[in-house]
Amino acid sequence: MKNIKLTSLQEREKTIVRVGHVRVGEGFCVIAGPCTVESEQQTVETAKAVKECGADMLRGGAFKPRTSPYAFQGLGLKGLKILKKAKEETGLPIVTEVIDTRDVPWVTEYADVLQIGARNMQNFSLLKEVAKTRKPVLLKRGMNSTIEELLNCAEYILDGGNPDVILCERGIRTFETYTRNTLDISAVPSLKELTHLPVIVDPSHASGRLSLVSPLSLATVAAGADGLIVEVHINPAEAVCDKEQTLSPAQFKKMMEKIRSLYQFMSDSP
Amino acid sequence: MKNIKLTSLQEREKTIVRVGHVRVGEGFCVIAGPCTVESEQQTVETAKAVKECGADMLRGGAFKPRTSPYAFQGLGLKGLKILKKAKEETGLPIVTEVIDTRDVPWVTEYADVLQIGARNMQNFSLLKEVAKTRKPVLLKRGMNSTIEELLNCAEYILDGGNPDVILCERGIRTFETYTRNTLDISAVPSLKELTHLPVIVDPSHASGRLSLVSPLSLATVAAGADGLIVEVHINPAEAVCDKEQTLSPAQFKKMMEKIRSLYQFMSDSP
Amino acid sequence: MKNIKLTSLQEREKTIVRVGHVRVGEGFCVIAGPCTVESEQQTVETAKAVKECGADMLRGGAFKPRTSPYAFQGLGLKGLKILKKAKEETGLPIVTEVIDTRDVPWVTEYADVLQIGARNMQNFSLLKEVAKTRKPVLLKRGMNSTIEELLNCAEYILDGGNPDVILCERGIRTFETYTRNTLDISAVPSLKELTHLPVIVDPSHASGRLSLVSPLSLATVAAGADGLIVEVHINPAEAVCDKEQTLSPAQFKKMMEKIRSLYQFMSDSP
Amino acid sequence: MKNIKLTSLQEREKTIVRVGHVRVGEGFCVIAGPCTVESEQQTVETAKAVKECGADMLRGGAFKPRTSPYAFQGLGLKGLKILKKAKEETGLPIVTEVIDTRDVPWVTEYADVLQIGARNMQNFSLLKEVAKTRKPVLLKRGMNSTIEELLNCAEYILDGGNPDVILCERGIRTFETYTRNTLDISAVPSLKELTHLPVIVDPSHASGRLSLVSPLSLATVAAGADGLIVEVHINPAEAVCDKEQTLSPAQFKKMMEKIRSLYQFMSDSP
Repeated sequence: MKNIKLTSLQEREKTIVRVGHVRVGEGFCVIAGPCTVESEQQTVETAKAVKECGADMLRGGAFKPRTSPYAFQGLGLKGLKILKKAKEETGLPIVTEVIDTRDVPWVTEYADVLQIGARNMQNFSLLKEVAKTRKPVLLKRGMNSTIEELLNCAEYILDGGNPDVILCERGIRTFETYTRNTLDISAVPSLKELTHLPVIVDPSHASGRLSLVSPLSLATVAAGADGLIVEVHINPAEAVCDKEQTLSPAQFKKMMEKIRSLYQFMSDSP
Repeated sequence: MKNIKLTSLQEREKTIVRVGHVRVGEGFCVIAGPCTVESEQQTVETAKAVKECGADMLRGGAFKPRTSPYAFQGLGLKGLKILKKAKEETGLPIVTEVIDTRDVPWVTEYADVLQIGARNMQNFSLLKEVAKTRKPVLLKRGMNSTIEELLNCAEYILDGGNPDVILCERGIRTFETYTRNTLDISAVPSLKELTHLPVIVDPSHASGRLSLVSPLSLATVAAGADGLIVEVHINPAEAVCDKEQTLSPAQFKKMMEKIRSLYQFMSDSP
Repeated sequence: MKNIKLTSLQEREKTIVRVGHVRVGEGFCVIAGPCTVESEQQTVETAKAVKECGADMLRGGAFKPRTSPYAFQGLGLKGLKILKKAKEETGLPIVTEVIDTRDVPWVTEYADVLQIGARNMQNFSLLKEVAKTRKPVLLKRGMNSTIEELLNCAEYILDGGNPDVILCERGIRTFETYTRNTLDISAVPSLKELTHLPVIVDPSHASGRLSLVSPLSLATVAAGADGLIVEVHINPAEAVCDKEQTLSPAQFKKMMEKIRSLYQFMSDSP
Repeated sequence: MKNIKLTSLQEREKTIVRVGHVRVGEGFCVIAGPCTVESEQQTVETAKAVKECGADMLRGGAFKPRTSPYAFQGLGLKGLKILKKAKEETGLPIVTEVIDTRDVPWVTEYADVLQIGARNMQNFSLLKEVAKTRKPVLLKRGMNSTIEELLNCAEYILDGGNPDVILCERGIRTFETYTRNTLDISAVPSLKELTHLPVIVDPSHASGRLSLVSPLSLATVAAGADGLIVEVHINPAEAVCDKEQTLSPAQFKKMMEKIRSLYQFMSDSP
């Protein structure tokens, strides 16, 4: 029994992950928001802006895994409280990262979706811990991880008792330096043929370039993904991190119109 | 003067490469055909089939760069004559690879577009030789080459006096093994913002998997490419090479309908 | 002050990490033992064998981060108790991995050196937790991590108050498939010129091939490393994991003689 | 018969490639000289210097494959004549690159060893052409090529009738940026166990850093290679290319002493 791949498409129907009124895996789900929660004003205003543009959920980091110990590490509990406030104001469910097994119980009180970041994809203790919660999990592919490894990590969560996993392709590490990482667009149809789980894409981290976010998002829709997670900030020039790849509300609005229209076209085509 | 990047978008308008009545860089150009020319019947029948489905040009290899010296190396001149016959029967211009500086003069008599394969992208002698011809060149990105290196290779051709270069993204080598290579979809909008040359994609070699060719082709259209080069064979099960990734005419027909329809939609959208 | 690289060689003298009577960074330190603790007999016998061959410390995993949730996950506390027993019998200090922040306090009671595995290199919560202990830390480079990222992770530990960090190169992920990973031998002299910390190499995980462990170990000595961590099992054919790369005591003995002799030669040369 | 791997060690004894009085595959062969032939004085003086330090052959490029068409492309025939002059003055055999099938006949008149550069490893036409000559071939591994692909390229030459192939590991392309490429030291023992051909290493191109050339050369000896090819220039600061990685004669002398001494030690050890 233990060798059964719970993630395998053969076993059962497509998984629909319910997050409040949002159903990931049905229609096209857009998660938007700042890289990191900086202040109540920044977060609430961004939340209102992305809501107005038609985003389905709000993303925002309270705990930030940073390469250097001297970089901003996130607001922690204070950040979670700000996200809660943003949810109260907009109704948008909250997607936020958890990076420590000890934090899972109380982060769960604030998050609607627990994000496992790329650097923690193979933090198996953390996977086992989020598996025990009843919260949906957004599992990001590690930047050096194969599709098979990603599915095995999903398996840790499913096998641990939590069926609600959303897979996220966010770019892999290659020799190319023009982009921050290389978006593995093939992962979308590959994961769709290998598993019943919803698959979304993060074009912001994959490219690290503002000018590429929109074309990559359209490619994501056309490739058959179930959604996007994208960085938006009310004032990208002043964002604490990832400003080179963060959309302004105006840019996001324009992109959303194209995405919704393309998704509608794709759905209507036979 | 020599330091001017001729490929730079800043310098002049978008290049339209004319191949007979086909204009690459205007509309969406589809090049289709077998990996390799095996026989007159196979090639002419495939040519008729792809023409019927709406392909713009015929691809087919007479010289095949193969990893092993014991693998089929192509029919050579006989293959070129078969391609000429296929062109006479269908009117489709011929795209075929040249792999040796000494062959350039006479391959030029048969080819409408000279293809430089991925393994020869940095064969600078060959680049200089095709630069001397008046034939358009389809320059494939090396599987380990950066976008900057690809542009420098285009520069060799442009600087050598041949302005008609079509760039082709065909997948890069990464650690992922589910796909044969990793299609770098970001290269499409990246190349479009860096150069005035047309950019096409080869989803067949990039993925090495039949099931991925169609979703990747749709993603290519949505990402803003100018065309596709795709492997089609009248009987994929009997193809001498690349049978795992080669479409049948029926599969190609279905895909072409989706592609044309999507391209139309994208063009009509503001 | 926060921007000072504590690991920088410029700042202070070479770090010598003291582990019982062993001084890592002085002479050449060899850590050997099984991939995973399977039983008391297997562990104690292997410990005695590697001790007899001249190993300086015993390695052995009680917690195993495994790609699949259905693979053997280690004996946990029972494994730590077996390692303690092996230490009592041989006097060899214990190097063992910790994979969960919650386990750090009690694993610390059994381990002489806390190992951070490649998959957890950027588990920043875990780095901060081991930084609070007084135990030396063996920090393995992530298989997709740059040298700069490894040094930043060391920085998390040093900045957290623990000066005793041993860096370990264990192979990076590339396109090459003949070896399990690609040993980045250049990382040895690179890290030595960038930092004052001791640098060791894991040729077993890097290569995944028994026949390569000895030549790579000799190359490691010649490249100037401070030590090795290598997999040895009393009966490799029956090892629960990594049997393709695990040395028998007889093979280890032969290799140790060559290594000690080469190190002596290198030290005597001007 | 055609499927037999001619390079396989199983088939016959270790190949010794004779180049004048030098026997590659017996003892440790050092090929040294400038990246590119710049002038008679620079080349002849460098040749004399490396000869004095104990180099076995002189390297120097007359044709340079360069990323950009606007970079120095080499002196061509004039460069070959200078190399001939340097050979007359020192007796050192000449290793020089050939990059075009049309040049093979006349480059063969000047070269003692024909080098196939990394970018041309899979230029199969060129491999077939050098296979027809009676000159030994130094075949460099492509920076994105697997060990298996390298062996297949050697096979093209052997199968074409030329048994004298020297394999060269020169670094592969990875995500690491501290070094120019990543020296795959495992390729040395891997190639030695897979083939009967001599295997050498190019630490200069692999690392791109002067400070790493010496430790990597020592590691190469310890890993069991048959030789080295290294960049030396009478005045590195004024070298036309690769100055960051080029040794001065004084540095080369010091390194040679260490290498010869280490090789002697390794040979004497049981």
